[in-house]
Amino acid sequence: MRAFVSENHTDLLSDLDAWLRIPGISAQPEHHEAVHRSAAWLADAFGRTGFPTVEIWPTAGLPSVYAEWPAEDSSEQTPTVLVYGHHDVQPVDPIELWNTDPFEPTVDGPVLRARGASDDKGQLLFHLLGLRAHLAATNRSSPAVNLKFLIEGEEESGSPNFERLLAERADRLNSDVVVITDTGMIAEDIPSAVTGMRGLVVATVNFHGPDLDLHSGSFGGAVPNPATAIARLAAALHDEAGRVQIPGYYDDVLELRADEKQLIAQVPFDEAEFLKTSKSRALSGEVGFSTLERLGARPTAEVNGIGGGYQGDGGKTIVPSDAFVKLSFRLVADQHPAKIRAAVETFVAVHKPDGISHTIEWEGEGVSPCVVGIDTPAFTALSRAISTAFDADVVLPVREGGSGPEAAIAQAIGAPLVFLGVGLPDDQIHAPNEKVTLSMLYKGAEAAGHLWQELATLGKLGLKG
Amino acid sequence: MRAFVSENHTDLLSDLDAWLRIPGISAQPEHHEAVHRSAAWLADAFGRTGFPTVEIWPTAGLPSVYAEWPAEDSSEQTPTVLVYGHHDVQPVDPIELWNTDPFEPTVDGPVLRARGASDDKGQLLFHLLGLRAHLAATNRSSPAVNLKFLIEGEEESGSPNFERLLAERADRLNSDVVVITDTGMIAEDIPSAVTGMRGLVVATVNFHGPDLDLHSGSFGGAVPNPATAIARLAAALHDEAGRVQIPGYYDDVLELRADEKQLIAQVPFDEAEFLKTSKSRALSGEVGFSTLERLGARPTAEVNGIGGGYQGDGGKTIVPSDAFVKLSFRLVADQHPAKIRAAVETFVAVHKPDGISHTIEWEGEGVSPCVVGIDTPAFTALSRAISTAFDADVVLPVREGGSGPEAAIAQAIGAPLVFLGVGLPDDQIHAPNEKVTLSMLYKGAEAAGHLWQELATLGKLGLKG
Repeated sequence: MRAFVSENHTDLLSDLDAWLRIPGISAQPEHHEAVHRSAAWLADAFGRTGFPTVEIWPTAGLPSVYAEWPAEDSSEQTPTVLVYGHHDVQPVDPIELWNTDPFEPTVDGPVLRARGASDDKGQLLFHLLGLRAHLAATNRSSPAVNLKFLIEGEEESGSPNFERLLAERADRLNSDVVVITDTGMIAEDIPSAVTGMRGLVVATVNFHGPDLDLHSGSFGGAVPNPATAIARLAAALHDEAGRVQIPGYYDDVLELRADEKQLIAQVPFDEAEFLKTSKSRALSGEVGFSTLERLGARPTAEVNGIGGGYQGDGGKTIVPSDAFVKLSFRLVADQHPAKIRAAVETFVAVHKPDGISHTIEWEGEGVSPCVVGIDTPAFTALSRAISTAFDADVVLPVREGGSGPEAAIAQAIGAPLVFLGVGLPDDQIHAPNEKVTLSMLYKGAEAAGHLWQELATLGKLGLKG
Repeated sequence: MRAFVSENHTDLLSDLDAWLRIPGISAQPEHHEAVHRSAAWLADAFGRTGFPTVEIWPTAGLPSVYAEWPAEDSSEQTPTVLVYGHHDVQPVDPIELWNTDPFEPTVDGPVLRARGASDDKGQLLFHLLGLRAHLAATNRSSPAVNLKFLIEGEEESGSPNFERLLAERADRLNSDVVVITDTGMIAEDIPSAVTGMRGLVVATVNFHGPDLDLHSGSFGGAVPNPATAIARLAAALHDEAGRVQIPGYYDDVLELRADEKQLIAQVPFDEAEFLKTSKSRALSGEVGFSTLERLGARPTAEVNGIGGGYQGDGGKTIVPSDAFVKLSFRLVADQHPAKIRAAVETFVAVHKPDGISHTIEWEGEGVSPCVVGIDTPAFTALSRAISTAFDADVVLPVREGGSGPEAAIAQAIGAPLVFLGVGLPDDQIHAPNEKVTLSMLYKGAEAAGHLWQELATLGKLGLKG
């Protein structure tokens, strides 16, 4: 496997160079034509690799690419694997902070710089090399598992049409395990795998007091002030220990087991580096949990914005008419966005003083959290594949703080997830000067090759545990 | 007195008509020429009335008018009285809401409409008629007290140069009692007098967290959020009973005596009307006090504005870098602006979480509160003068919620204040369609005439109590 990857890695590099030149920025309409070209390029690449079935799936927005390669010797025990990734990329602003042209891929020693190099084009292309290595190493003409790839074209703009696509194409997507490939590892020499993503619900709460701004001399202290009320609402979200005070908020939270806490504690965390990256002066958060636990395994309530009344220079002695707070709640397994929305609605209604009217605007239904059981057969298979590729025994679990469509995929497919991603924390995805470390792509290719073999050995029954 | 006022009130009307045509808006530079004309017109009117000394006092901004008329038979016991008012007027925006031209005085039955009709030109001109009535009724060729008038030209733009003028002219302004003439009464048939104005300090508190807006997925729940912190600060200002929680805040508050509370309770207050005027849906404030007590006799802490983080439509999942709250504190006797500023600084420092840096910007030094003792000889003299003019025994005390230069005058002169004002709550001062009720001006003229006699009878010693 390693020899094949090593002998053929220039194929990966030349493919990557070609694909990265296509500026497929899904968030910017002027680049939508490029997103279509990116889909076409990827479809061609799947075809060249040997996939017998390659389709471009249109949506109400930008297209996904679907490719399928069944095991020729497929039996009832041969697992079907769905790989998820995305072919669109982030915008490049602020362009002046780039040291090279974001769409002119530049190899600089051990890294390759370009928009999308790590997120997610590099990570998808290691799969093509990995699959070829898998065929070569096992002397097969088709994969040892039934392989499906679903590569989205709107992940970087919030996946607005993805759940509908999953529902529409449910009959084609049926699988036994889902492999997510747009995440990363702790460090080049510390193989690891993401084992959870947080869910998310987002709301704006508006408080309305008097129908006009009042003179605070004539009315202050005698009528309810919506800015004070919104501040009291925001302040009531947490207790002194940083624990969210919304009744029922933690009811469905899967508490970390002792062995999970122990594994997370082994994940290297450099406090000084974290403060430097976040340009913050102190750590804070829920008492009783480490920073990595707070970020990945604990739900939060965050004030993203607050406003109301006079916003100009100096002072203006008014009782404001209106105030708002913008809140986001990061959720962890097994919290439900709908239940959390209901709990927040009740909390706001209880904390709204007499004489203040209110509205709550939700941003959609919310995103569910997901978690990978570290004792499941799928995770064990992933761990073995990664350990073999990285020549290291340990695969540390990493709970990601962010939120994505992963839980929706797991729910739609009804299959367990694992995360095989080889990005690094300094890849600067979503920022200027994105790069990918080439050795990570080669190891990723090996790991993918091993993973198909591990899953085939496990079989369908073994996957169910 | 009444006969003289009645026979000569057309003089007041024609003077008022002439003066109101001068648009002396101090807040608008394009009207500053008119403020100078207004000062000249008033100086001429003082001269015509018989004042032997009339001066226009320049300042770094717009001029005040000073007039002096000593009692010819002045003795050591003859009190010197300083009358304060202002000759500038408010802007007229929104002009489209006026039913008549604001500088085209229009008599409409019992009222006269124009900008400045009540605040403060009508109230100043009743003094000229009242003084002539006083001379006629007492058959004197000079007032029974040493009269001084100081009429400011920048009251409607915050009196920026007034304290300096008071200091510079201290030798000329020396007096035994100060009569403030730009306030009002409860109703046409309920004679009353203002007995207090609140003080004021105004601040903007800025909290700074991370040096940039952070992604709430990657950092939320692990670093301090300045928007949450500013909300917690604003929320900490009051307890559930609406009492300000800044340590020491109430230390110097002169609590209302039982007899004062009883008198305030007699002041008519229409809750439905107050809610309608304030376009509010509920009363609120410090538990244990009536609305009139909350507005006039209790200090407040008000959030005038709050802001930070994302302000646009929808949501944005960030931990903001900055947040602010704009606060004003209305003070009552004997609170000191400097002590309150220091208490607020300590409060903010204590409530600022680790990892948040802060600044506090104060709007100047603040305004002191003032209060008139209702058992002082000056207030007794005022009460008798008003009762005689209005044919009614009671002069109810009214604590104004607003803040002005009155305390600064009292402090600079070192003399007690009384408030003789005949504005009505529906005069719409500072708003479109300002009016004055003419019968109130005539009663005001009578009350002023009686007041000079009352104060002369009291004498300097009597004034000291």
